[in-house]
Amino acid sequence: MKPDFSKGLIPAVIVDDQTDDVLMLAYMDETAYERTLETKETWFYSRSRKEYWHKGATSGNRQLVKSVQLDCDQDTLLIRVDPLGPACHTGEKSCFFHSIEGEQTRSSEQTIYARLMNEIQERK
Amino acid sequence: MKPDFSKGLIPAVIVDDQTDDVLMLAYMDETAYERTLETKETWFYSRSRKEYWHKGATSGNRQLVKSVQLDCDQDTLLIRVDPLGPACHTGEKSCFFHSIEGEQTRSSEQTIYARLMNEIQERK
Repeated sequence: MKPDFSKGLIPAVIVDDQTDDVLMLAYMDETAYERTLETKETWFYSRSRKEYWHKGATSGNRQLVKSVQLDCDQDTLLIRVDPLGPACHTGEKSCFFHSIEGEQTRSSEQTIYARLMNEIQERK
Repeated sequence: MKPDFSKGLIPAVIVDDQTDDVLMLAYMDETAYERTLETKETWFYSRSRKEYWHKGATSGNRQLVKSVQLDCDQDTLLIRVDPLGPACHTGEKSCFFHSIEGEQTRSSEQTIYARLMNEIQERK
């Protein structure tokens, strides 16, 4: 089972393996994909700079690959990582920090933790 | 703050608001995006069929929009939804069911739930 690069670059959704937060989306060609599998760190192809980009090579904020999944159409990757620092060049943990609609929902992790801590407190 | 459609379609990452699972990725143009905000259900633009696509209009597996976030470059959307059924046309809950590398990690929700249930059991 391999990604289908026949139509060009494909998007890779990068998720924090511990928190389930979606950190960023970037693009891969076959070389970036193979380097990602070989090095177990994320490599992308920058559409604006037209060059390969080893995430965190300069900043140190590398992303250690925990798992790689492919979607049903074989044209999108979902990569779960252990991030060594913020994903975003702005210093934000995730690139998705602009809310257009709705509250930024707390992650399940936080919600479930809060709910269970309440439960535990009440039982004391 | 609006998405930048000047370079064409932009990807929308669809996440289950309850479980944090990444369900699918599909593309939007400005019309699909505006219909999504207006109807609070997901609309996409199908690159293969070259037409608008109201997710679940036929299958009933619509996605109720809970929040919309935009990334730092304004060219990727993250949409958290309450799905009324499987996201994938194969009947799978998520389109990302092919594992290329690593175990499909259990979601934080399940992990934390299991960990805290153990904790509670031990205290009895």
